[in-house]
Amino acid sequence: MTSLDDYRGRRVLITGGLGFIGSNLAHRLVALGADVLLVDSLIPDYGGNLENIAGLESRVRVNIADVRQASTMNYLVQGQDVIFNLAGQVSHIDSMRDPHTDLDINCRSQLTILEACRHHNPGVKVVYASTRQIYGRPDSLPVTEQHLVRPTDINGINKAAGEYYHLVYNNVFGVKACALRLTNIYGPRQLLRHNRQGFIGWFVRLILEDQELQVFGDGSQLRDFVFVDDAVEAFLAAGLSDAMNGEALNVGGDTPISHRDLVERMIAVAGTGRVRYVEWPAEKKAIDIGSIYSDASHFSAVTGWTPRVALDEGLRRTFEYYRSRLVHYV
Amino acid sequence: MTSLDDYRGRRVLITGGLGFIGSNLAHRLVALGADVLLVDSLIPDYGGNLENIAGLESRVRVNIADVRQASTMNYLVQGQDVIFNLAGQVSHIDSMRDPHTDLDINCRSQLTILEACRHHNPGVKVVYASTRQIYGRPDSLPVTEQHLVRPTDINGINKAAGEYYHLVYNNVFGVKACALRLTNIYGPRQLLRHNRQGFIGWFVRLILEDQELQVFGDGSQLRDFVFVDDAVEAFLAAGLSDAMNGEALNVGGDTPISHRDLVERMIAVAGTGRVRYVEWPAEKKAIDIGSIYSDASHFSAVTGWTPRVALDEGLRRTFEYYRSRLVHYV
Repeated sequence: MTSLDDYRGRRVLITGGLGFIGSNLAHRLVALGADVLLVDSLIPDYGGNLENIAGLESRVRVNIADVRQASTMNYLVQGQDVIFNLAGQVSHIDSMRDPHTDLDINCRSQLTILEACRHHNPGVKVVYASTRQIYGRPDSLPVTEQHLVRPTDINGINKAAGEYYHLVYNNVFGVKACALRLTNIYGPRQLLRHNRQGFIGWFVRLILEDQELQVFGDGSQLRDFVFVDDAVEAFLAAGLSDAMNGEALNVGGDTPISHRDLVERMIAVAGTGRVRYVEWPAEKKAIDIGSIYSDASHFSAVTGWTPRVALDEGLRRTFEYYRSRLVHYV
Repeated sequence: MTSLDDYRGRRVLITGGLGFIGSNLAHRLVALGADVLLVDSLIPDYGGNLENIAGLESRVRVNIADVRQASTMNYLVQGQDVIFNLAGQVSHIDSMRDPHTDLDINCRSQLTILEACRHHNPGVKVVYASTRQIYGRPDSLPVTEQHLVRPTDINGINKAAGEYYHLVYNNVFGVKACALRLTNIYGPRQLLRHNRQGFIGWFVRLILEDQELQVFGDGSQLRDFVFVDDAVEAFLAAGLSDAMNGEALNVGGDTPISHRDLVERMIAVAGTGRVRYVEWPAEKKAIDIGSIYSDASHFSAVTGWTPRVALDEGLRRTFEYYRSRLVHYV
């Protein structure tokens, strides 16, 4: 097991660095003494937000650019020790309305980044943010890495392709790469502006605004959740572990919880908001996958990572973060 | 079980219709009385060849176009009953040299075709030509559809995405779609011009020219082969079977054979050519997957299909076809 002190002085590039997980990773890496470069396109309606690096401006470099742009990436990857590759289109709903844009951002961009590494920095280590969404409707729970990849929407397909590219570049071209199949991540710096990037950020916003939440169906489906600080630790561990090069491993929570229970916990922790149960909208039902939660034991065995922040504590920190900054997120 | 007579008078579109399998399918569909439209881009070095429809010119319509072109496809899909979707970039080697072009042709084009169906002909049935290559190096043999999809090259990843798109459009948008994961197909009308589309066409050419074949390693790896007429019957069966909508099923041969034995059979049937065993080139070894052959029992159970042409007979017909036409293929 290597130590996080190894990040001191390391040159680290984060794509999607102004986004939810990317910016939290930036805060932690700066604290660890890394030399951090953030790349973000700030595409409206995506997760990038300059407020996410408030207080960090003088300690990171920010390069506004689109990761699809080959000459830019060919330059930016040079000299980097580790790339945390988090740029992407993350809305399932948007991917079904405009599949070509999803392809462009989740597949073409990944090839552009990996080709840049292959030709301009083949010794770099790349950690890719994949998603447990690629499993689709699970045959059995918890979902392990032996479960078939069977995405139920265009976003899931393109994320799966992006993941596979990383493994092939590792296996064939020697770029050291691995992928984390992330479960639902929540916490500070998540996009709250609209409801097309998953329900949890949207619910945080409605609760902060003391509004009514709508839960589809009876809310009995189970999910696991990981607080963003724990997700950050998973990325840091993966970035130092050569044992998982060429692998795509689950990063999941330790205790699944139903939507119903989650929402009640959120409302209880915040002390605001209320819930109403409504019929599934057809468009959303068509790509819903029911209960799903992941088995992260393989990743834990390889890296020693385990989630440390319990749900109530994570929710408390989340609401506290946004209360004084909501204006920057809505 | 439906009858192939159902194709009489049906409007059928074949993408990649001047290519290897597409043109053989066209010959059979014309004989069955279908109304056949072929779309092909005739991109040099791909499989399209006007010689493939010699004798058929007045009985099919040919539209030279690129399936990536949305307005073209939006028009051409209209009024079709069945689309056999075979257009694609099929060289593994090329995909590793130029991954962006492979993405464009194997992913963007598929979204363009499926979006055309979704918006302009949602009642159509689409049969997609996938490949058993998406399984990568097999964990167990024969490979069933329960085996993980784990491609070893960019072409395999993009073909997997193309397949998944079809299943999602079936499940979410109601376009009736299924996919055939084809094993090695051989026979008349295959590209012989270069060796970047798999070894069998290239070996046919060298044998016809009485040259020396090079087999990498000891040739002990096992593969299964399906004669193109049998592959055509598989497509026809899938086109009529609503039972396999939303499914991707293996189409494989009944008896695996080693490369060594295959080459010796080819030389014996042709009466020309000779073989030499050489070291694996590193570039090819890196993406080779060793022994692999498929279990097609699920597809057989659903459609009643089984391969009927034995290897020696298939090879005999293959060499006979090319002997009088080699000038059009080299």
